[in-house]
Amino acid sequence: MYTCSLERMTDKIETFSRFGDAGHGGITRYTLSEADIAARNEFVKRMEKIKAIIEYDDVANVYATIQGTDPDAKRIVMGSHTDSVKNGGNYDGILGVMSAMEVLETVVEKDIPHTHPLTAMIWTNEEGSLYPPAMMVSGIVCYDYLPESIKEKFKYENMLSSVSVLDPCDTFKDALERSGFKGDAKNRLNPDSYESMFEIHIEQGPILEDAGKNIGIVDCVLGMFNYRLRFYGQTVHAGTFPMNKRQDALFAASQAICHLHKEIDALGYPELVYTTGEIVCHPNVHTCVPDYVDFCIDVRHESAQVLDKVLSIVKGCAEKEWAGCNCEVEKMWNRDTVYWDKTLFTYAKEAAEEVDSSHMVVHSGAGHDAQFAAYMIPTTMLFVQSKDGLSHCEPEYSTPEQCTEGATVLLNAVLKADKS
Amino acid sequence: MYTCSLERMTDKIETFSRFGDAGHGGITRYTLSEADIAARNEFVKRMEKIKAIIEYDDVANVYATIQGTDPDAKRIVMGSHTDSVKNGGNYDGILGVMSAMEVLETVVEKDIPHTHPLTAMIWTNEEGSLYPPAMMVSGIVCYDYLPESIKEKFKYENMLSSVSVLDPCDTFKDALERSGFKGDAKNRLNPDSYESMFEIHIEQGPILEDAGKNIGIVDCVLGMFNYRLRFYGQTVHAGTFPMNKRQDALFAASQAICHLHKEIDALGYPELVYTTGEIVCHPNVHTCVPDYVDFCIDVRHESAQVLDKVLSIVKGCAEKEWAGCNCEVEKMWNRDTVYWDKTLFTYAKEAAEEVDSSHMVVHSGAGHDAQFAAYMIPTTMLFVQSKDGLSHCEPEYSTPEQCTEGATVLLNAVLKADKS
Repeated sequence: MYTCSLERMTDKIETFSRFGDAGHGGITRYTLSEADIAARNEFVKRMEKIKAIIEYDDVANVYATIQGTDPDAKRIVMGSHTDSVKNGGNYDGILGVMSAMEVLETVVEKDIPHTHPLTAMIWTNEEGSLYPPAMMVSGIVCYDYLPESIKEKFKYENMLSSVSVLDPCDTFKDALERSGFKGDAKNRLNPDSYESMFEIHIEQGPILEDAGKNIGIVDCVLGMFNYRLRFYGQTVHAGTFPMNKRQDALFAASQAICHLHKEIDALGYPELVYTTGEIVCHPNVHTCVPDYVDFCIDVRHESAQVLDKVLSIVKGCAEKEWAGCNCEVEKMWNRDTVYWDKTLFTYAKEAAEEVDSSHMVVHSGAGHDAQFAAYMIPTTMLFVQSKDGLSHCEPEYSTPEQCTEGATVLLNAVLKADKS
Repeated sequence: MYTCSLERMTDKIETFSRFGDAGHGGITRYTLSEADIAARNEFVKRMEKIKAIIEYDDVANVYATIQGTDPDAKRIVMGSHTDSVKNGGNYDGILGVMSAMEVLETVVEKDIPHTHPLTAMIWTNEEGSLYPPAMMVSGIVCYDYLPESIKEKFKYENMLSSVSVLDPCDTFKDALERSGFKGDAKNRLNPDSYESMFEIHIEQGPILEDAGKNIGIVDCVLGMFNYRLRFYGQTVHAGTFPMNKRQDALFAASQAICHLHKEIDALGYPELVYTTGEIVCHPNVHTCVPDYVDFCIDVRHESAQVLDKVLSIVKGCAEKEWAGCNCEVEKMWNRDTVYWDKTLFTYAKEAAEEVDSSHMVVHSGAGHDAQFAAYMIPTTMLFVQSKDGLSHCEPEYSTPEQCTEGATVLLNAVLKADKS
């Protein structure tokens, strides 16, 4: 049993929190931005210090590798992303990169024997905040292995021409070219050179905190679907049109949101989550009755049967009239539950027990690059407790001790995988 | 009794519908845009043809005046606006300008005797679509006469620096300077030179159509208030945060909209109208529970007592918790019911009877420039039936016969005012 260094991990957290510092406790670090490049340079500097070999692939993923005793063995890779959402926190993504660095640094410092080469990796553009979609680059790299329904969303040419949300003249391809991090496609993560993958991430929910556990051993990424409900009414003047003749699309959508909560809650599945996070209203003027409103509903649960029950409630909305408006229901995307590799999951669980970490088995509700990697090579994930369950916001926080404990569990899980 | 020309009115409707033609039956004619300047030039051309004197004031209002027999008499003015909302129709505003032109053309053609000078007028920027707010220029011109609560919204310097919604480098002042329609402040509508004002407008509601009447004799502009309800929740990840711990600001707002409909409808006032036309959602991302939503509610009724009852329901929202979110209620603006000048109203009603127009007395739910003018000089309004009650949209329609009938009632009402 080996342990990572609290002092070194704390120094990494403090250092990386400066790259993209937005001035009030969090960061904005869009992929391949100046701030992201500074974070990547820091990664390279620290990995070169322990004599890791640095490689780049054609989509700017970075790989830092230390050799093992068997020169022919496949690599074991650990990684996550350095980019953030706008006004994000200091842990989402970067914790997985810092933990991978910490594992390699500990292995080198303590001269821990291992057979396989061990790699710390940075995934490019996980958030997709500047160049949508999210998980863009893992979609590109794992493309051949993705289910058909997911594949179509990640066509290479479409991804390269993804336009910046801030600058219509700037594409992801432009960002790649000017980043200085574009390397060779032959360096991409692939099943011939890599045996398995680990990703450690903050939980982004309150389950661990509520249970008083520091570490989550993740068994799966929840299945989910995203549908859009569209309501069609008629724009009329707010001051002149009698109420009983109106077709108010916002009132319609409000009724539907309340209806969905009532019906879905009545199913009685405490682990089910669903969210209406995005709404569009037209013309969205205070003197006009809205003629068009849409919102999306994102639903997640491990069981396909439960998701089906919710889906029939969602689809049922199209059969009703809402405040005189018609409703259309359109599927945007869905995914089945992705289970992690059972063997790697067991290594992670055993490692947590051996290092006496307070831990429990949890699901991942959020998507991660590891989930696409899992279609290609055996993969698993670990979570670190998130204060108040917050993420994608500046107050995001895990203690240095929890972060270091996560790195320690990761180290020992990787060493088990190395021995197998 | 005199009648206007169906042929000449039809020609005007066809001609003016070309200025800003958006290609599918309606227009986009922002104030002082190229399309609006073309419409203004057409007005000037036609008014010069009947030898009217053309004057411009410093906020680009245009006045075309034909003399009466008494050179010292005050003017009687008829007018409305040439600007439109985005993808508006061919009648809102411009009908009042065309009707004023038609009255002057009829008076000149038929050599109708009259004592007072008669003026056709174009108000600048009634819609406020490009440079908010609506009724900006009547707010400027009638500023000294406005109630204190309205005044603060229309400070001259603030109005001049109103920024284009399409171009952050362009202000209303810039538009005025480049328009070629900026004249002298001494030409502004004022109570020393003008005796009374008439505005004819499309109804923008279905009351006349449902009653089978062509012309509305308007008695007042309804009192109204506009409040904003703000809901404060917490952004958390859509996939990872348990439902029972969420503070979802969009669910909160949806519940509040349904609650407002239920409670306000229960008051049982059939003439009451209220609208939640505008909603803002933050961060408005499908994977995030919204942490902030606001919407506005616009409520209109003739009776201050009825408005007070609704207001107490609206304010009551701040005392409840909505889906774990706090609610704040903020007043944006309000106005009392503005009654038109009783004498002018009577002239309009008598004129409608004399020309055998099918008519009825109606309220105006919408605001118009005439409403600000009414604080300064005696003013009244006439409405022309709107097909299906539609306005601020491309299908807006009144028949040429209805439009000409409106002009005829206007002409005869003005002649009554001239004689008094």
